[in-house]
Amino acid sequence: MKKIVTIGGGTGQFGLLSGLKRYPVELTAIVAMSDDGGSTGVLRDELGVLPPGDVRQCLVALSESDQVMRELFSYRYGNGVLEGHSFGNLFLSTLEKMTGSFEEAVAVAGKVLAIRGQVIPVTTENVTLVCGDGCRGQSAVDGSVLRDRAGLRLDPEANANPKAIEAIERADLVVIGPGNLYCSVIPNFLAKGLPEAIGRSKARVVYNCNLMNKAGHTDGYTVIDHVGEIERFVGRGRVDFVTYNNRLPSNRDILERYGEEGKSLVPVASLDEDFGETTFRPLPADLVSGERFVQKPGDPLRRTLIRHDADALAALIIGHCLVDL
Amino acid sequence: MKKIVTIGGGTGQFGLLSGLKRYPVELTAIVAMSDDGGSTGVLRDELGVLPPGDVRQCLVALSESDQVMRELFSYRYGNGVLEGHSFGNLFLSTLEKMTGSFEEAVAVAGKVLAIRGQVIPVTTENVTLVCGDGCRGQSAVDGSVLRDRAGLRLDPEANANPKAIEAIERADLVVIGPGNLYCSVIPNFLAKGLPEAIGRSKARVVYNCNLMNKAGHTDGYTVIDHVGEIERFVGRGRVDFVTYNNRLPSNRDILERYGEEGKSLVPVASLDEDFGETTFRPLPADLVSGERFVQKPGDPLRRTLIRHDADALAALIIGHCLVDL
Repeated sequence: MKKIVTIGGGTGQFGLLSGLKRYPVELTAIVAMSDDGGSTGVLRDELGVLPPGDVRQCLVALSESDQVMRELFSYRYGNGVLEGHSFGNLFLSTLEKMTGSFEEAVAVAGKVLAIRGQVIPVTTENVTLVCGDGCRGQSAVDGSVLRDRAGLRLDPEANANPKAIEAIERADLVVIGPGNLYCSVIPNFLAKGLPEAIGRSKARVVYNCNLMNKAGHTDGYTVIDHVGEIERFVGRGRVDFVTYNNRLPSNRDILERYGEEGKSLVPVASLDEDFGETTFRPLPADLVSGERFVQKPGDPLRRTLIRHDADALAALIIGHCLVDL
Repeated sequence: MKKIVTIGGGTGQFGLLSGLKRYPVELTAIVAMSDDGGSTGVLRDELGVLPPGDVRQCLVALSESDQVMRELFSYRYGNGVLEGHSFGNLFLSTLEKMTGSFEEAVAVAGKVLAIRGQVIPVTTENVTLVCGDGCRGQSAVDGSVLRDRAGLRLDPEANANPKAIEAIERADLVVIGPGNLYCSVIPNFLAKGLPEAIGRSKARVVYNCNLMNKAGHTDGYTVIDHVGEIERFVGRGRVDFVTYNNRLPSNRDILERYGEEGKSLVPVASLDEDFGETTFRPLPADLVSGERFVQKPGDPLRRTLIRHDADALAALIIGHCLVDL
């Protein structure tokens, strides 16, 4: 079976993995470990554990257990002392406290959820995302206007998980994103050794460009700008394929809500235009999910409500990036 | 396989089931549902769920999963907003909130823990234990001096779970106790229809007398007094066997600690004496565990630290009560 490694954060990878797992491929999800918002942030503070949230989402995406177990892991408390916590986060953090090992916790949860494939935290060190202006913590960075993008770093400096490096080296295809560019996707590349592993690997690299720009972070970015930011880490010309959306979504009420928050679709006006000479192969498609996502009650974090169509994205990747391998 | 039904509460049944599960018998644990102390009490208040604690202990006892899952279900938080909670309680209560059914929650947990046998809540109605003097709530009753023992009741009146009744009717052996007499064992008989089911059943009945008397509840009770209280519910002469301890435990420091709390061993002076004419067959044995139990950090409830030797108790029951059936 072809080996696919995905790199990203929570919600974006959830959809991607949910789509990819329908195909006979060997999946490994590498997950950023700098989240400190919402339930995850409280657990880090109170129990002194590593951030469980993004890992949990990937585990649920890869789960082949009964619907009830997947729902349980995603269950979020609406009231009481547990308000805002997700049960899956408690599960992972409790196991980590008990065994002293986040990776063992992930392994046990993976067994309980009967996952196909594996989930690897990009680092097992306790890190904080810091931006060039000195703003500390992923949720603080997420909410701030980013000026010094190049100064984004992990504090303390952390080594990439050797298992992540090994998975990338053995991969046939590395899939980057979609996800919050500076807070979910790029933090993976800040783990020492990870970009170099992608540079070394014989794997093809596909980058899934986001559907929306994020106010204060990627205002006015085009597809090319996104790719440029990724290649700043993985090397110029290293990205082989870029998927991006080329249709305006039909659920305009959500678009309007997004507009109010200062987000906008990554410009697709140039869809049928020539990107000019690119080192990657563009893969445009209608990628916006028609599903109406809603904010879950009790969830302390605002989630992206315009999301990729998981099946369309997976079909695009499998259909174009694995052929003739 | 012979069908054994146990009736009791948490810690007492935990040991009993741990011992019995080594034998090729079909086990069903019927569990009292009036607990409202500790982690269980907080969850009942905050989430409006049924009491998970005693059920959890039985599930862990019957579990044949990896050690790590059994430890996880028994894990108790030592600090933070979750202080005092047991993870297994959260697991059950979250599933109940999610599915709307405590029994479904128990079934899912049983699957995750790979239990052998089944655990049945004695009632699925939301009940409060009330004593004759008007003292409300199991933990309040537990801490008070019981005067009107005959007035002990569930509020509101509740029907026994039909599955509990069916299990008793089909049983070869019904095993009652050990456990807190008025707060863990007898509350099972307060569910309407349960004592009648024992009366109707062709099963033999064995009663495991407690090792210790409880101040304010069973001061000065002899073995015969204990049996008398059980038969007040299940019918005079219905108990076929009574196991009881006939050796002073060797860990005298714990005995002394117990003495300070006003507890005492159920008198065993009359061990070699004649009980007089009894309708049951006495099964005396050395039943005190040599294991040194300690209070777990974070546990808001004081637990019994002198406990039955699970293997000795199970061997006594299997060896005497099932032969020639």
